[in-house]
Amino acid sequence: MSNLPNQEEITRILQEGDPAALREVVTASHPADVADAIEELDIEAIWNALQTVPIKDAAEILSHLPIEVQERIAEDHDPEQVARIVEKLSADDRVDLIKQLEPELQQKLLAGFGAQQRRVTERLFQYDEATVGAVMSPDFAAVPAEMRVSEAMDLIRLEAPRKETVYYIFVMDNESRLIGTISLRDLILANPNEIVGDIMQRDVIQVRADEPRTVAADKIKDYDLIALPVVNGGGKLVGIVTVDDILDLEEEEATEDFHRMGTVGSVKTSLREASIALLFRARIGWLTALVFVNILSGAGIAHFEATIDAVVALVFFLPLLIASGGNAGSQAAMLMVRALATGDVRTRDWLHMFGKEILVATLLGGAMAGAVMLIAGFRAPDVLVPVGLTMVCVVIFGSVLGMSLPFVLTRFKLDPATASAPLITSIADIVGVLIYFTIASWWLGDTIAAAAEAAEAIPL
Amino acid sequence: MSNLPNQEEITRILQEGDPAALREVVTASHPADVADAIEELDIEAIWNALQTVPIKDAAEILSHLPIEVQERIAEDHDPEQVARIVEKLSADDRVDLIKQLEPELQQKLLAGFGAQQRRVTERLFQYDEATVGAVMSPDFAAVPAEMRVSEAMDLIRLEAPRKETVYYIFVMDNESRLIGTISLRDLILANPNEIVGDIMQRDVIQVRADEPRTVAADKIKDYDLIALPVVNGGGKLVGIVTVDDILDLEEEEATEDFHRMGTVGSVKTSLREASIALLFRARIGWLTALVFVNILSGAGIAHFEATIDAVVALVFFLPLLIASGGNAGSQAAMLMVRALATGDVRTRDWLHMFGKEILVATLLGGAMAGAVMLIAGFRAPDVLVPVGLTMVCVVIFGSVLGMSLPFVLTRFKLDPATASAPLITSIADIVGVLIYFTIASWWLGDTIAAAAEAAEAIPL
Repeated sequence: MSNLPNQEEITRILQEGDPAALREVVTASHPADVADAIEELDIEAIWNALQTVPIKDAAEILSHLPIEVQERIAEDHDPEQVARIVEKLSADDRVDLIKQLEPELQQKLLAGFGAQQRRVTERLFQYDEATVGAVMSPDFAAVPAEMRVSEAMDLIRLEAPRKETVYYIFVMDNESRLIGTISLRDLILANPNEIVGDIMQRDVIQVRADEPRTVAADKIKDYDLIALPVVNGGGKLVGIVTVDDILDLEEEEATEDFHRMGTVGSVKTSLREASIALLFRARIGWLTALVFVNILSGAGIAHFEATIDAVVALVFFLPLLIASGGNAGSQAAMLMVRALATGDVRTRDWLHMFGKEILVATLLGGAMAGAVMLIAGFRAPDVLVPVGLTMVCVVIFGSVLGMSLPFVLTRFKLDPATASAPLITSIADIVGVLIYFTIASWWLGDTIAAAAEAAEAIPL
Repeated sequence: MSNLPNQEEITRILQEGDPAALREVVTASHPADVADAIEELDIEAIWNALQTVPIKDAAEILSHLPIEVQERIAEDHDPEQVARIVEKLSADDRVDLIKQLEPELQQKLLAGFGAQQRRVTERLFQYDEATVGAVMSPDFAAVPAEMRVSEAMDLIRLEAPRKETVYYIFVMDNESRLIGTISLRDLILANPNEIVGDIMQRDVIQVRADEPRTVAADKIKDYDLIALPVVNGGGKLVGIVTVDDILDLEEEEATEDFHRMGTVGSVKTSLREASIALLFRARIGWLTALVFVNILSGAGIAHFEATIDAVVALVFFLPLLIASGGNAGSQAAMLMVRALATGDVRTRDWLHMFGKEILVATLLGGAMAGAVMLIAGFRAPDVLVPVGLTMVCVVIFGSVLGMSLPFVLTRFKLDPATASAPLITSIADIVGVLIYFTIASWWLGDTIAAAAEAAEAIPL
């Protein structure tokens, strides 16, 4: 196994506070491990550690710290000193951090950068967060098409230390337009005297900087790419997106979908670090909105007061029936939201999925009606038929709702994950109440009428 | 933009059925695009297309088809012809497909492979699906430590076409034990006369083939690796896991979590392709289990029949109150399950998260109680206090349940995502009923007693 210093060792050395030992352990460790070890310390201790080690290591460690820790470090310390470390971050990490800060501090940090870093940062900064431009890196390897293979290799050798990846090399014409690509592998295998333009692969899979970032993610996944070139409107190569950026992005988007499905608003920071106020704000909106929705269920019940008064046993099955509709709906929504997110199902598949859902839901509703009639039959034989009928109806309604709402939201360019489990459950509740008492009133009509007469006959 | 033939073109050529045109378009297209275009055809048409194109292209296209389509192709055709294509798949894709098939067909396909492919396939086949061994590729680039840089480059040049990646080269001692690593980038930058062992990086981040595959995913993510070496118990290098394998794996695991959170069982195939029977089986188990749980809510209500009879207005607020507990619980569970899955929160953080949840939930419950008392107060002023009190209690209970259950499940080595929204909602329902009617019985004690007396006094 590896001889890398483990986290306990790093933590021990940090606590001892010996600068020489710290520098030594940082040099011997992976920056991700150092970041993991120091991330739980207080901000001042992290800052001191970063100040002790060489500036390049400090930047590497900083980039592996959670974004909210990076943010607090930048906010609480001398902008000039912070800029010296932040400048050494890779361009995309640098922009990510700066975007978190107040405009005033942003300007101070930019002023502390070298001219080239400032220019690159400002350019990336312009792209909207949801676009490819915001996740691309400007440090790509590119060669002119008319170069010989041997010259190209020399150029790559020279530039390699500064580039994000040199394994995929982009080929440009005289006007910096992307016209081909060649892998380092093919360059090595080629005859040194050949011209790059003759052996490059044309028809490059590429993406525009202003396209949604999910387009880049999909292309990297579909075509199994390590690096995807990004061009501007004029076809000029402006950056690359690498597979590890996509890995982070995928995780982020899956997390967003999870939160939406749980009706939680944006919690972009670590859950462990999130403040009480942030968590409250992220959760209260939907919860209150759902209170209003659920009050409608109560209104539905109030409308059927006479029915309940007459046959109070109906109430025993109320939570079961409305919950079952919601549960079947949650299942359908979870399946569909995920299938839409991964591209397994597309909007044009709606009719096919709808037909299948009706069939599956009917089977599910039938089986559940059977189960509840079997188990609960002896307790309340007189309400058995309306309970069974309602079960079939609410399961079909919930399932179709859960399956369709994500499609409808997608159709209106909204996030399908807004069709959250609690929203589906709440809508299924209201409709469940209406279905249940309508069926019960119809089935138990005579009993209810008799009870009403009795109540009138005997004034309380 | 790219000049690659688009899907419509490929589809048109497929329909025309001209073999020469098909071969031409396949050569000019990315196999992922061809797979996308043919995947919706019937199995015979796909098989005919695969038979028409060169065998290497056929394998590339096959690997981009959904696994269930691959499976049907293998099952429905001559094993000898199928083996010729499957043999050309990359080792991990080959094993993935063969694992789907009946033992008899597996043997027939293996018999159709060349001796080396058969050996590699059989070795990978032994690893459990959840381990690193099942996702690794045996096609890695490795050089002995005593080689010169120039010799190593020659070896890599020779082997490159057969390897999954040559950008990370592993360095072995005389007994094939992994002792170092060197990137192609560093090899190119090095003096050709240097010895690889002198310039390689020691302390390689690595993983054992029998470790859970999530360990490989975490290491690749934490250390931003492109390829992670896999060793056996004796430290011998047996394979690599590449970042694109992890990308697929991450997507698969996020999908599993989504399905669990929606109480859906294993749906490993495409949702679009899934049969009615499969969908029914995946959904009926939890739905029926939740019927039993929800019947307990009914039993709870039945227990408080006298209270309901006396103050029927209580029932109006029942769906709202029990839904609110479930909604707050779903939020907490979704946040926590995802945070545990991404490693943002660990089991040791339980107490910290618990304390925070209590605070957040109290604020949420208070705000929601205020909202409901404000809106619904005029309708039923006499039940206002128990409704408000219940709201605070159920929101706290639901939140703490939703937040804690994922931890408890993790503690017992179960999947935290089993703490699904419907399960949390159903438990919150039962407890909500009990809390509500207990508080109401206590608050409305006099009214209920009076009603009971009145009912006894007037025999119906």
